Amino acid sequence: MKKQLTISLAIFYLLALPALSQEALGEGQDIISPEINENRSVTFRLFAPNATEVKLAGNWMPAEGWVPGSEAMSKDEKGLWTITTEALEPELYGYAFLVDGLLVNDPNNAFLSRDIALNTNIFLVEGAQADLYKVNLVPHGSVTRRWYDSPGNQMMRRITIYTPPGYENSRKKYPVLYLLHGAGGDEEAWIEQGRTAQILDKLIAQGKASPMIVVMPNGNVIQDAAPGEGTQGFYKPAFMVPKTMDGTYEETFMDVVNFVESSYRVKAKKADRAVAGLSMGGYHSMHISRYYPNTFDYVGLFSAAILPDQDTIARVYQDIDGTLEKQKENGYKLYWIGIGKTDFLYQGNMEYKAKLEAMGMPFTYRESEGGHIWKNWRVYLSEFVPLLFK
Amino acid sequence: MKKQLTISLAIFYLLALPALSQEALGEGQDIISPEINENRSVTFRLFAPNATEVKLAGNWMPAEGWVPGSEAMSKDEKGLWTITTEALEPELYGYAFLVDGLLVNDPNNAFLSRDIALNTNIFLVEGAQADLYKVNLVPHGSVTRRWYDSPGNQMMRRITIYTPPGYENSRKKYPVLYLLHGAGGDEEAWIEQGRTAQILDKLIAQGKASPMIVVMPNGNVIQDAAPGEGTQGFYKPAFMVPKTMDGTYEETFMDVVNFVESSYRVKAKKADRAVAGLSMGGYHSMHISRYYPNTFDYVGLFSAAILPDQDTIARVYQDIDGTLEKQKENGYKLYWIGIGKTDFLYQGNMEYKAKLEAMGMPFTYRESEGGHIWKNWRVYLSEFVPLLFK
Repeated sequence: MKKQLTISLAIFYLLALPALSQEALGEGQDIISPEINENRSVTFRLFAPNATEVKLAGNWMPAEGWVPGSEAMSKDEKGLWTITTEALEPELYGYAFLVDGLLVNDPNNAFLSRDIALNTNIFLVEGAQADLYKVNLVPHGSVTRRWYDSPGNQMMRRITIYTPPGYENSRKKYPVLYLLHGAGGDEEAWIEQGRTAQILDKLIAQGKASPMIVVMPNGNVIQDAAPGEGTQGFYKPAFMVPKTMDGTYEETFMDVVNFVESSYRVKAKKADRAVAGLSMGGYHSMHISRYYPNTFDYVGLFSAAILPDQDTIARVYQDIDGTLEKQKENGYKLYWIGIGKTDFLYQGNMEYKAKLEAMGMPFTYRESEGGHIWKNWRVYLSEFVPLLFK
Repeated sequence: MKKQLTISLAIFYLLALPALSQEALGEGQDIISPEINENRSVTFRLFAPNATEVKLAGNWMPAEGWVPGSEAMSKDEKGLWTITTEALEPELYGYAFLVDGLLVNDPNNAFLSRDIALNTNIFLVEGAQADLYKVNLVPHGSVTRRWYDSPGNQMMRRITIYTPPGYENSRKKYPVLYLLHGAGGDEEAWIEQGRTAQILDKLIAQGKASPMIVVMPNGNVIQDAAPGEGTQGFYKPAFMVPKTMDGTYEETFMDVVNFVESSYRVKAKKADRAVAGLSMGGYHSMHISRYYPNTFDYVGLFSAAILPDQDTIARVYQDIDGTLEKQKENGYKLYWIGIGKTDFLYQGNMEYKAKLEAMGMPFTYRESEGGHIWKNWRVYLSEFVPLLFK
């Protein structure tokens, strides 16, 4: 075994070369960060002997205006900076270090999540709701990245599709949830930040959700795929992408539905279709469901960017009242609105709610704590999905 | 449009919160890094006004022993550090910044690649061979993450599967390449670092490769999935994982083949099966192909960790000569060995080559520049695949 061990070590050092850092090959190698302690406090560590100030910035800390919260870390004599938080509620969290003012990822945490152009480290405190976000020992669905033809956008477009456990080995037909991302997102957002596969796997295993296909398209019609995954190559992702809120997506959305219904074993009736989305995806869901007012029996608006006024020139705002009226006449099973109390879109949602009430359009309203954050969207998804296709 | 714009800006600032950094909301926001210039030089930028020394470490720079190469960057009066390289050959590159000795990812580059526990930024200089690594305007295959039952390992295991363009819409049966990762890798390695989907899409579109299914299993038999993707949750990935080189993987490999052949439209004959891998995956491919000596007509050893001596106790080393002899008698179409001149496994490959020659086992030998690096493995894949299933 000695020879094998020697060679293994040699492989180790060579493969560690991409570490590109003496620290990574030396003292830094043994560091565990973050470490989730038994009492749900979390310890963070960073080896940075030359730094004069290191702070931890975590998305569980209260922000001050636009400035995220942060807390100072302590340095030991070797240059290892440490901090241990209070006990944290079960949740999927994001954080970064601020090293002399510079945002730095944790080199000892392999797990990152991209939001628009920025990657930040993540960790999971297990328990309660957060157990929906881990990979549980339950049957797993499959997640496929595919390309479909969108004649309306004159391009092949990339799409992410979750098929439930057993899909491949049955002849059953399944209902479909179309799940739409927000501005700055793409076809990776719900699967990565939203933990859609983990949530669906668990809810289906518990018998709380019907087995369903979840379709996660790209809502930025000028892109063929998420940044780095399409023919535009690697570039700095932007928050606002042209043509995302002018009606083009709504007008061409049937390209997605037609692809799914001709490519998967789906039930292709109104009672078997749901459309939901977060922020801009809530806006898309609201408009798509009224553009095609007899197509979706289930509609979910998660912190939706509702812009009900018609003082804009975009064609998506034409005849909102008429099409909503039509949607109401046709009937539907669920129109679900979720919003956080401190969401900057709260007022817009209140106005839209009042409008629906005045029109006599039934809806289910869910108000949560907090603002415009993934924490809420994961909760909304896990509450919305059990209501579908019953 | 004014109201829409205001709301868009509000959404922008809220969603930018995960940036967790004043820089990201201020001066740092406009920085482009890396910028690939027309002459194929590359400019890197980092806003770090408090840093006293910033270096760029890139995997194209010559390393000194175990210490990767790096070059000093220059600071301007605002605190922006810059460097422009010489013209770089077309390739997919990795890099990091060293800020006062600390390894730091580029906050302006959204694209990272994980190798074992470490994420480093990547960029692509297009042209020549590297055009195989970008997303080209050609028909695309699908990439699915699925779970299959491995009775031999008594667990459900995650697997990555590439199906070629048109697979879903035809009734054709396809040949299968089993493509194995190295130590510290997992079922994500070939698709992410190896650019397998991009390479296959392009070679198939060019008519250089036969349409085929590429199966990328996880070779670490104690894991059910890549770190972060399985029931073990988020943890620090290790280079050496127990039981990866003791024979267990070889003994249970038919679980993978049986799953694929019962779940996909495949041609299930020896002439339609290939097995290849890099480093430890080359070791696995060598042993798997002789364990099942009448199963694979194509074998590829890319920088293989060949340990032909039998002075170890692992059962994988039993009767190497006898099984190789059997493999030779049964016949095969291609036994392909690729190794870099400066690979630390070069000598082991030379000894194995001599052994095959002495036994009269035919093989194809490809010697390249460079060492134990992904640059070589992508090249080997792109040369190996066109030789298959002809």
